[in-house]
Amino acid sequence: MTGSTYASPACSETGDPLLLTPGPLTTSRTVKTAMVHDWGSRDANFIEINRSVLARLAAIANGGNDWVSVPMQGSGTFAVEAMLTTFVPPGGEVLVLINGAYGKRAKRILEIAGRKTVVHETAEDTPPDLAQIEKVLAATPSITHVFAVHCETTAGILNPIAQIGAIAARYGKGYLLDSMSAFGALPVDVQTMHIDAVAASSNKCIEGVPGLGFVICRREALSRAKGNATTLVLDLHEQWTNLEKTSQYRFTPPTHVIVAFHQALEEFDAEGGVAGRGARYRNNCRILVEGMRALGFKPLLSEALQAPIIVTFHMPEDPRFEFQRFYDSLKARGYVIYPGKLTVADSFRIGCIGRLGEREMRAALNAIAEVLDEMGMNRAVARTA
Amino acid sequence: MTGSTYASPACSETGDPLLLTPGPLTTSRTVKTAMVHDWGSRDANFIEINRSVLARLAAIANGGNDWVSVPMQGSGTFAVEAMLTTFVPPGGEVLVLINGAYGKRAKRILEIAGRKTVVHETAEDTPPDLAQIEKVLAATPSITHVFAVHCETTAGILNPIAQIGAIAARYGKGYLLDSMSAFGALPVDVQTMHIDAVAASSNKCIEGVPGLGFVICRREALSRAKGNATTLVLDLHEQWTNLEKTSQYRFTPPTHVIVAFHQALEEFDAEGGVAGRGARYRNNCRILVEGMRALGFKPLLSEALQAPIIVTFHMPEDPRFEFQRFYDSLKARGYVIYPGKLTVADSFRIGCIGRLGEREMRAALNAIAEVLDEMGMNRAVARTA
Repeated sequence: MTGSTYASPACSETGDPLLLTPGPLTTSRTVKTAMVHDWGSRDANFIEINRSVLARLAAIANGGNDWVSVPMQGSGTFAVEAMLTTFVPPGGEVLVLINGAYGKRAKRILEIAGRKTVVHETAEDTPPDLAQIEKVLAATPSITHVFAVHCETTAGILNPIAQIGAIAARYGKGYLLDSMSAFGALPVDVQTMHIDAVAASSNKCIEGVPGLGFVICRREALSRAKGNATTLVLDLHEQWTNLEKTSQYRFTPPTHVIVAFHQALEEFDAEGGVAGRGARYRNNCRILVEGMRALGFKPLLSEALQAPIIVTFHMPEDPRFEFQRFYDSLKARGYVIYPGKLTVADSFRIGCIGRLGEREMRAALNAIAEVLDEMGMNRAVARTA
Repeated sequence: MTGSTYASPACSETGDPLLLTPGPLTTSRTVKTAMVHDWGSRDANFIEINRSVLARLAAIANGGNDWVSVPMQGSGTFAVEAMLTTFVPPGGEVLVLINGAYGKRAKRILEIAGRKTVVHETAEDTPPDLAQIEKVLAATPSITHVFAVHCETTAGILNPIAQIGAIAARYGKGYLLDSMSAFGALPVDVQTMHIDAVAASSNKCIEGVPGLGFVICRREALSRAKGNATTLVLDLHEQWTNLEKTSQYRFTPPTHVIVAFHQALEEFDAEGGVAGRGARYRNNCRILVEGMRALGFKPLLSEALQAPIIVTFHMPEDPRFEFQRFYDSLKARGYVIYPGKLTVADSFRIGCIGRLGEREMRAALNAIAEVLDEMGMNRAVARTA
């Protein structure tokens, strides 16, 4: 399945290249084989699987009884658009915190929906300025909501979501969070972080397959959102009330994706939940950054700002380094990395999430060292053991 | 996986109950095992699989060079809402032909989007009145589009889509079609039927798994639809232009669902395309209707109006017939049927589509006969052989 011409490329449990990307990710064999069945969407077994998935997601975010998980077919962005267009009423106004592509995308979604926005933008390697947020909220009482991105994968930066939530709460604003790439690996506590809604998806740190987004919503805020939505399918309020009433989706759910997600949640629990999953990813990230530094690469972000999700590296200045050759040679060895998306610097990215551990990260570093050798580049130190 | 207490229930190749429903459907083992791999969404292998899927879908509808397939993550209704909100401009007005739930749903989508509608509604067992359509179009020049449903699964009725297209063309109106439940089993010719756009999904008659919708669009009409959409994610024009430019999805595609869909299209071709697939379903439908008549059940529709997709039967008047017991006893035997949705009569439905053939239909009839026996009902004739 790899299309590789390399003699013995690295591969996952199912013989596929290892995906060192922000998703779709490498998933376990057991997650995928859970899909080798068919379910009726009105079937009691499927309904129970779906109910269990939604209950676990809310619990991961410390949802208690006052929060509810609402699934959304499609992808993570479908869930973000559903969240923004359901929670922000026609007369609403959102302070959008931007330091990358996903903040910009939220702004665009709000503009298409005809919702007013105020933007606080910082560079892709710079977190928002909390004092400035407070100043904007104090000066602009018409703002109804604050929107933030947990980990902006544009640079891989970790944003201070708890502090932003505290400020939003102090000014009585709703708080909407895109935790897409971080949910499950970094703590999200909807209660202490004063979150009204947080969106994520099946195929990031929970390690399911792509096809389902979800939004964990404060019941009270969601119940006030009736009639806000600008579409039929992305209406989270209707999706919720129909699920509560009938236990069924309004429109055909991706049954196989949901059953795989259930299996992924079992494996997530077995690994120790957010603590266990986060620890593995932090270890992956540490090995990656140390190994890449040893090979002469420079990460964009300081350790304090680096989320253990995806790491941006500066493109080497050595003229012998050709990124396309680097990418293709790694792909031939069974490692898929990711191009950069930065506007501030020429870069590429390597992910630390998915079904990858210490062994895979070290093997990827060895492959990178080999490719550098092939390109005739001097390296600061020998390849990692 | 069945939760069954019955000794030896019927099952699919993967041990699951047989789904005699309008979807999700029973699919082949090979379609499902195609999902036991991971793909990067930017990977050349995945991009080629996706390209092949889209080209085949347009070809099934006789698309030639002037039509293009645009995929939409989510479900069939996501594709229908994307089609309506992309093709109908803010000042547009749609003649919506309604004889069931899916026509009503289209009207609701248009109303939420703020598009004007004119409705021609007939009973759930009655096709639209072509002379009346012509009269409305002649009297209402502000109408820009006509919307029809190919097979309305509310009753299972086949609507006269070619004749409607001819009228729309004569009056210079755009023609938007929901062929969700019929595409792949009943012919859709976008050229001779004068279709601007036709929506369907991965998990109906092509027998893939749920999670992807698609719209086959006339290039010229789609290129004029720039800026119409009311959302970011459901914008077919942007989805199309981005795929043409980069070969990649704007937002994470359901990679596993798409690869399964590719395998389903291989099996669809091997069965002889629309002709072969349609012939199997027509045979399933004939066996079902004959067998159920022999057991004393009455189908709602005449043969001329019955699409070979799903059949509605009147609920028996015999007081010993309890639908819930009937449903549960069939489920215990491995057959999942579908409740009715009619407003005109008390009814239930049995589907003829998915990975089912003569053997499965006859076995289902035998199970139905057994359940009638258990309920102490007299039957007109002996059970089918």
